[in-house]
Amino acid sequence: MTSVPSGSNDQPELTPELEELYRNFDAELLIPLWTEIGDLMPLQPQGRTVPHVWKWENLVRLADQAGHLVPVGRGGERRAIALANPGLGGRPFATPTIWAAIQYLMPGEDAPEHRHTQHAFRFIVEGSGVWTVVERDPIPMNRGDFLPQAGWNWHAHHNATDKPMAWIDGLDIPFQWTNEVQFFDYGRDTLTEPEHATPPLSRSERLWAYPGLRPLSVGNVAPGSPLLAYKWEYTDRALAEQLALEKEGFGGTVEHGHAAIRYTNPATGGDVLPTLRTELHRIVRGVETAPVQETGSSVFQVFDGSGTITIGDTTWSVSRGDFFVVPSWQSFSAKSEAGASDSDSGSLDLFRFTDAPIFEALHLNRTQLTTRGF
Amino acid sequence: MTSVPSGSNDQPELTPELEELYRNFDAELLIPLWTEIGDLMPLQPQGRTVPHVWKWENLVRLADQAGHLVPVGRGGERRAIALANPGLGGRPFATPTIWAAIQYLMPGEDAPEHRHTQHAFRFIVEGSGVWTVVERDPIPMNRGDFLPQAGWNWHAHHNATDKPMAWIDGLDIPFQWTNEVQFFDYGRDTLTEPEHATPPLSRSERLWAYPGLRPLSVGNVAPGSPLLAYKWEYTDRALAEQLALEKEGFGGTVEHGHAAIRYTNPATGGDVLPTLRTELHRIVRGVETAPVQETGSSVFQVFDGSGTITIGDTTWSVSRGDFFVVPSWQSFSAKSEAGASDSDSGSLDLFRFTDAPIFEALHLNRTQLTTRGF
Amino acid sequence: MTSVPSGSNDQPELTPELEELYRNFDAELLIPLWTEIGDLMPLQPQGRTVPHVWKWENLVRLADQAGHLVPVGRGGERRAIALANPGLGGRPFATPTIWAAIQYLMPGEDAPEHRHTQHAFRFIVEGSGVWTVVERDPIPMNRGDFLPQAGWNWHAHHNATDKPMAWIDGLDIPFQWTNEVQFFDYGRDTLTEPEHATPPLSRSERLWAYPGLRPLSVGNVAPGSPLLAYKWEYTDRALAEQLALEKEGFGGTVEHGHAAIRYTNPATGGDVLPTLRTELHRIVRGVETAPVQETGSSVFQVFDGSGTITIGDTTWSVSRGDFFVVPSWQSFSAKSEAGASDSDSGSLDLFRFTDAPIFEALHLNRTQLTTRGF
Amino acid sequence: MTSVPSGSNDQPELTPELEELYRNFDAELLIPLWTEIGDLMPLQPQGRTVPHVWKWENLVRLADQAGHLVPVGRGGERRAIALANPGLGGRPFATPTIWAAIQYLMPGEDAPEHRHTQHAFRFIVEGSGVWTVVERDPIPMNRGDFLPQAGWNWHAHHNATDKPMAWIDGLDIPFQWTNEVQFFDYGRDTLTEPEHATPPLSRSERLWAYPGLRPLSVGNVAPGSPLLAYKWEYTDRALAEQLALEKEGFGGTVEHGHAAIRYTNPATGGDVLPTLRTELHRIVRGVETAPVQETGSSVFQVFDGSGTITIGDTTWSVSRGDFFVVPSWQSFSAKSEAGASDSDSGSLDLFRFTDAPIFEALHLNRTQLTTRGF
Repeated sequence: MTSVPSGSNDQPELTPELEELYRNFDAELLIPLWTEIGDLMPLQPQGRTVPHVWKWENLVRLADQAGHLVPVGRGGERRAIALANPGLGGRPFATPTIWAAIQYLMPGEDAPEHRHTQHAFRFIVEGSGVWTVVERDPIPMNRGDFLPQAGWNWHAHHNATDKPMAWIDGLDIPFQWTNEVQFFDYGRDTLTEPEHATPPLSRSERLWAYPGLRPLSVGNVAPGSPLLAYKWEYTDRALAEQLALEKEGFGGTVEHGHAAIRYTNPATGGDVLPTLRTELHRIVRGVETAPVQETGSSVFQVFDGSGTITIGDTTWSVSRGDFFVVPSWQSFSAKSEAGASDSDSGSLDLFRFTDAPIFEALHLNRTQLTTRGF
Repeated sequence: MTSVPSGSNDQPELTPELEELYRNFDAELLIPLWTEIGDLMPLQPQGRTVPHVWKWENLVRLADQAGHLVPVGRGGERRAIALANPGLGGRPFATPTIWAAIQYLMPGEDAPEHRHTQHAFRFIVEGSGVWTVVERDPIPMNRGDFLPQAGWNWHAHHNATDKPMAWIDGLDIPFQWTNEVQFFDYGRDTLTEPEHATPPLSRSERLWAYPGLRPLSVGNVAPGSPLLAYKWEYTDRALAEQLALEKEGFGGTVEHGHAAIRYTNPATGGDVLPTLRTELHRIVRGVETAPVQETGSSVFQVFDGSGTITIGDTTWSVSRGDFFVVPSWQSFSAKSEAGASDSDSGSLDLFRFTDAPIFEALHLNRTQLTTRGF
Repeated sequence: MTSVPSGSNDQPELTPELEELYRNFDAELLIPLWTEIGDLMPLQPQGRTVPHVWKWENLVRLADQAGHLVPVGRGGERRAIALANPGLGGRPFATPTIWAAIQYLMPGEDAPEHRHTQHAFRFIVEGSGVWTVVERDPIPMNRGDFLPQAGWNWHAHHNATDKPMAWIDGLDIPFQWTNEVQFFDYGRDTLTEPEHATPPLSRSERLWAYPGLRPLSVGNVAPGSPLLAYKWEYTDRALAEQLALEKEGFGGTVEHGHAAIRYTNPATGGDVLPTLRTELHRIVRGVETAPVQETGSSVFQVFDGSGTITIGDTTWSVSRGDFFVVPSWQSFSAKSEAGASDSDSGSLDLFRFTDAPIFEALHLNRTQLTTRGF
Repeated sequence: MTSVPSGSNDQPELTPELEELYRNFDAELLIPLWTEIGDLMPLQPQGRTVPHVWKWENLVRLADQAGHLVPVGRGGERRAIALANPGLGGRPFATPTIWAAIQYLMPGEDAPEHRHTQHAFRFIVEGSGVWTVVERDPIPMNRGDFLPQAGWNWHAHHNATDKPMAWIDGLDIPFQWTNEVQFFDYGRDTLTEPEHATPPLSRSERLWAYPGLRPLSVGNVAPGSPLLAYKWEYTDRALAEQLALEKEGFGGTVEHGHAAIRYTNPATGGDVLPTLRTELHRIVRGVETAPVQETGSSVFQVFDGSGTITIGDTTWSVSRGDFFVVPSWQSFSAKSEAGASDSDSGSLDLFRFTDAPIFEALHLNRTQLTTRGF
């Protein structure tokens, strides 16, 4: 079990007595610090997690094939296909804490009801026609909408149209798996008629989707946002106004040409989920954000536009729907550029999710940046 | 100084020696507990503060007279006329903690800039045309709008029209006065051109008035809401939706026929101001709310409709614009009824402000109710 | 009701019309801001509360006379005699928020059981022999001991000796009285045999009086410290060690020659009571503390030594047992000096209680000091 | 990368088309949920982590051999030997979050100064003579003492005697390693004369080791306890008093015959370290604790006595110094019994450390027990 780095100056000479000692350690399920410390306690985060880009077209193509080959239902539960970071040992983990997947539902399909302690959200980069039903409240899903879903709520999905639909799921599956703290429950196999309804607004939004207003009828709120949908209309307007305020000579943007909002729990003002932070960033055509390093890992999806992203020393081109991972403490910046076949609005919109709330809660967060950035 | 209740069985017999002792107490600025305890430490809150109703028509009439007789400007600062609870010794205190006043601005007038640690808000029951300028951000004021204003922000008002306008001010002046913790600063005497602008939305709203979205550019937020206006459109819709949800068979209302929202700080989900809670209650025609007793005092203004209110054993008729005070621990309920000349929507809308955040922060809050009510 | 300052330049000229308006205001229970603003909203706290010193010898002499003339028992409840600040209208209020009293129990007497929401504490400047019984747990009281007693706990006192004993009580009676939020309950008239026990340690101390250790058997703790006695032995040692550390060249003291501890709730690390902060300050002979101004008011009792205190522009000589009041925002410093007949340890020990937790909880606290001081 | 469980009824039939799809997933670094869900999202925590017992005599024997073969110094930094849970892939992790090791220092040796973000503590089951120097404050280590050490504090160790000494280290190394959030710094190679001093009390204790007293000179306190040593004398007395109170007919113990304290941060009342909870449990001879299941993992060391422990369905005998691991959600109970060569006090004292603060901060904690237990 004990691996001794060969030729390390820091290691004691490997005498027969020491070899014997290491064998005895192994036999007793013991490992010395001095052979492991470089990996265990590096000067700064040095990762197994690596940066990587997944192209949306590949994801959608494979998801569609799965739509024709793999049924949705009990056991498999969901037709979800997850990003597997090449540094994380072949497990379906985008980062050490985050699960990121494309989910795909064929016309008329229902994904059955279940609940789990893993916190989840949905984000829709294209399409419409699926309703997520949370605690019997049907919630529409359309391009740009964000649907947080705190742990231990019953939920199902149904596609009310005659077209397949894809969206993305983010969860803290790796975090709860590594720490062995997760629970799961099967719910009802089929939804009822009222749950197949397709209202334009969920009941949750009718109660909670007002700026700064709280319904008095709701007492203490469980961890996780009681607002179950954040419609694109508001997100888009908030970003546009930040950029307009900057133009008028006031603050508003994070840095020049870079607007951003964080999705928050209206009952607390904090993150929508105890373990996941979610944000939407808009970068004006031509602008490059200041590089920033942070503890904790992020996954991004390009919501709109195209450009380049730089993680550490490597630069990638990205466009609508593409995913990428920024590992802990690796420098990140993004630049909005016209793509080859670009017909978009002229800005690069990035949806971001991170595990920052975990490390803030535990006072393990650090940020370093040249100027204020992401 | 020592007052001995005559004929009290609980008091020691008033011998010459005891009279001498009481005189000596007085001389040394001392007061015994045993002569005072009934008043000081009653079995439950028993008030000096009394319930009272102020009629809006009287307030507006007198405010208008003041508008013609009393200038606005340095020294007096504001043309505000405060409710003086008859139990509070002739001071301009609606309750032991709350200042409630009508403020009145004549056509074209400016109320000069100042700031103070007292937390404040404006609420508009009728009229339009005045902008409150907070930290140089002009905020429009229209019927139903609520404008919180946390302490120590520079602010002024200007009437941009050719008509006078009235609105109400709520502050924690009595609380800060009693405890001697207040500060005040004079600002600039005149506003600049950009501050005389009359935009339909303040910059504060453009940054913050989205359900559950927070601008990343704003770091730590001072106590008190960064959202400086809560437009009536949202409040009205939130109340209507609660009643609709109740009709559809779901929760949503506080009790049958009684919808209510609380104004909250979007950065914390808590009260808009550290010392003041504000709410809007809507009671459907014909409904009477369950009586409730709470520690802490409230002031209400009727925003719409008419009906009766019962405080302790007394019932009053109230209609649009009327103010009333509910003292600590006195039972309160409200009933929505058609008024004599009523042409309104059929519900009684009550704007409420209370000192509850003070007592919740200090764990001194108590509530007692028959069924869930206000 | 409206009082117009004569000769004020800021006031509108008092025409017959304006006099008529003021009469109408009175009739409608209204008061304008412009006639009151100087008092209501001063540039900084300006007090009705005044600094004052009460001499311990007078307090004890009068308390002893009361011991012979006034029985303890139901109705009067306690033989307590309170400081009445001359600026607070003849009420038994040391400051706008704080009650401070000497309590006196004759040999063998019991003060009957009751409870109240007012938070309380006892502090003992001399004597011994009384046990306070809180929730049936007898707690000894000796010189230097501090006994916090959070609201709504049943409590009684009994003198187990053949000598009278005096101590001081601090409560938030004025705060709860002004705000009308207090409750009171009568308990049993007589104590049982086990409650007349005189153990050297209360059960509360046996569970909680260990540095940094918490009993697992106690779940959530109510507001207010579960530790019911802070023995002088620890306080004295903590202060002595701070001064020793300073001498050894390390930090430890608040400023040169000025050691201080705050009594804290071991379950939270915060103040022992939600509305009252308590501290013990030790000033080395010859040292004068840096002047400091704070919002909120304090009462001090000299625990040991003698010296001078300066509040605003006035200086007083004080010695063991003397009380004094420091009003909000008035500058305060203390100097340790040898008294006329001084045989003490050479330092001035001041017990202090303040309403600071109220204003910190509400973000209304401010401090200003030349160098770090009280 | 994708592994398909053979013969699972839940899986779609493995057609050539599906095999082709799985190959394409692999090529794109994608993994489907439906092949992984049983492991990823089990009905309740099901572990890789397994229960295991390490015998103290083996640990000490091997540590002593290391003392003669492996130098302490830069590079290896510490002569620490860690428990490697057999379920965690041959890494030096006692549980998914916790590092537990024996550290060994030879006569006169210094372990050089460094600091790291990993939170740490020392606990001493036998021996004395080593001082841990934290931020230049030398802290003695004796049997029963507990020394928390929050992240990012400089620290070193020196053995001031002519005998070797062993103690245990607990850290959150696995948690910070998995999440890639750790930082490390080298400090000075040698300690100065004052840091080689061997005072009986650290400066930290002289400032903070008083029940419920806080030094006013210390402002905001960083995460992690400012009290750097919790002496056995207090822990022992606290446990003894809980058992005595139970005998006298009062509460005090967790359950019959089972006393326990938690080490807390005196500045907050919370856990001593943001990621680690530490407790000492005393079980009276003959008593067996009620089984309890909790999310999160624990490591125990037997401090005194002997007995049996049951984890899930397996029972082990343990005695002084032995370590064992309780994985998440596995049922645990302990029984105090006389050992073969037992000459001890008659009770089983267990030192426990867990990652509970992580899951409480994130609202992921759950407990289930028959009656109140650990």
